[in-house]
Amino acid sequence: MRVLSGIQPTGRPHWGNYFGAIRQYIDLQGNEQSFYFIANLHALTTVRDRDKLEQATIDMALDILALGLDPDQATLFVQSDVPEISELCWILMTGTGMGLLERCVSYKDKKDKGLKADAGLFTYPVLQAADILGYDSDVVPVGQDQVQHIEVTRDIAQSFNHQFGEVFVLPKPKVLDASAKVPGTDGEKMSKSYGNIIELFEPPKQARKKIMRIVTDSRPMEDPKDPETDHLYQLYSLFAEPEPLQEMADLYRKGGFGYGHVKKALADASEAYFAEAHQRRAELVANPARLKEILGDGAQVARKKAREVLTRAQEASGISSWHAKLK
Amino acid sequence: MRVLSGIQPTGRPHWGNYFGAIRQYIDLQGNEQSFYFIANLHALTTVRDRDKLEQATIDMALDILALGLDPDQATLFVQSDVPEISELCWILMTGTGMGLLERCVSYKDKKDKGLKADAGLFTYPVLQAADILGYDSDVVPVGQDQVQHIEVTRDIAQSFNHQFGEVFVLPKPKVLDASAKVPGTDGEKMSKSYGNIIELFEPPKQARKKIMRIVTDSRPMEDPKDPETDHLYQLYSLFAEPEPLQEMADLYRKGGFGYGHVKKALADASEAYFAEAHQRRAELVANPARLKEILGDGAQVARKKAREVLTRAQEASGISSWHAKLK
Repeated sequence: MRVLSGIQPTGRPHWGNYFGAIRQYIDLQGNEQSFYFIANLHALTTVRDRDKLEQATIDMALDILALGLDPDQATLFVQSDVPEISELCWILMTGTGMGLLERCVSYKDKKDKGLKADAGLFTYPVLQAADILGYDSDVVPVGQDQVQHIEVTRDIAQSFNHQFGEVFVLPKPKVLDASAKVPGTDGEKMSKSYGNIIELFEPPKQARKKIMRIVTDSRPMEDPKDPETDHLYQLYSLFAEPEPLQEMADLYRKGGFGYGHVKKALADASEAYFAEAHQRRAELVANPARLKEILGDGAQVARKKAREVLTRAQEASGISSWHAKLK
Repeated sequence: MRVLSGIQPTGRPHWGNYFGAIRQYIDLQGNEQSFYFIANLHALTTVRDRDKLEQATIDMALDILALGLDPDQATLFVQSDVPEISELCWILMTGTGMGLLERCVSYKDKKDKGLKADAGLFTYPVLQAADILGYDSDVVPVGQDQVQHIEVTRDIAQSFNHQFGEVFVLPKPKVLDASAKVPGTDGEKMSKSYGNIIELFEPPKQARKKIMRIVTDSRPMEDPKDPETDHLYQLYSLFAEPEPLQEMADLYRKGGFGYGHVKKALADASEAYFAEAHQRRAELVANPARLKEILGDGAQVARKKAREVLTRAQEASGISSWHAKLK
């Protein structure tokens, strides 16, 4: 079973990304030949700045490895290092109905908001289909909002298979667990667009400063409080060990504590939680040749598989089969 | 100056294709590094049949070489043998406005007719732009109906250059001479969709049969006739040497001849005109290794150039520039 996960290098990951997606992706490594890629070709639809995209690509690779992706257990590579996917993308484009793409929410949303959409955003699901089908992926972990795109991939694959024979494996979505609540510094859901994020790899001092400024209510210290409905406690519960977490819950119910106390505990716990990742990241930053090697090896493994699938598609559709007739 | 011509392998060429386009393409060979390609990736938007596409690709290569394309004077290759073009296609896709594609006539026509359009037809001009820009083409010979697509290519190139620096050469269209009138067997313009064509490489006997059935009017033999307004004479004028053509014109003006006489002269003249091409084609058919070699060599030359341009685009947009930072 191959699991495939693509991550866009469009910004530094924050706590919400980690608990909502990245950690869950990484937990799936060790499945037979799991593939992880940094989707820089997809990012090009929004990042139109050479230096930003370049740096974000490297950063995302560093982040994922720092967070525990193990090159011995999974294949990590950069999307554009596998040209076969772009080749497959065009082949799939020719069989994809306009209606299928027009109904895709990411495009529809942007268009309905009156924003200028380009052909990259519109055909985004076709490149996604090429990524997924190009590696014979069985399972694609996605957020609920991306399930539609996996359905589109299945539609594209089925229509190709119907016309040209059984070429593509039909992938299944694995919907990520969205139960972990990750509030931002304003108490709302943590999201880059709300400007309320704390990044995984901010300098600890800076993260601590943000934590200390998390919005709290003005109930008197003495009042007992329900931990389950408090966003500071929710955040703390993501990082704390069971015992101190229980103690904190008791403290909430008893009352007689300041939010500053909780914030300090949260800062300490989150710092400890990511300490190993911070260290691993620093080591990788100091050794770019190692990162180059990991991504180079990953690309080689990915290309081998993609070449195999692309050849099937090219042969089946008559794109390359003429070669064999000339001898 | 590089001239680029792409020809779709979607059917066997007929007299109209030859005088309206193919002959003019071939006449441009010998320009410094002229590139000719068989657009099988474009053809995939309409030909959804492996055997047909495969055979049409080989046939088109044979036809063009038979008609005089000289591998020593020009580079001939099959589109899909240059993966760099598909890679460039996606990069260009991300900067192409939807409006630009929605206004393209080929898509608009099909949509207005209520026909089902797919993403391949819709994004067709982006792949075309990749073909043109990917070889630093200066001049693209096209029919009047394709001038719009060259404008789209220029728009895409300019917008990319504006965002990322001077990466692409801006191509110019060279509008083909459409003055040669090539009537079909019913007297209307020769066109596959009218079912009135005579193919270049039909067996001579079959072509002769079609010629003998060309529709004529019922004016009496004795009447003098104006050669310039007669479609049989128009066809004859495409093939005849100046002297017999002058004699035929005189005969028309004098009267007293049967259309059968003109048809026979047309059959003889067209057969002689294409005799060398027929022979060259037969030789190539008997030597598939030679065709393989020509297309293989062509692909190698084309890939070298495309790799150079793709690298420029990938570096400028940040898609590949991160590689250099890891050392």
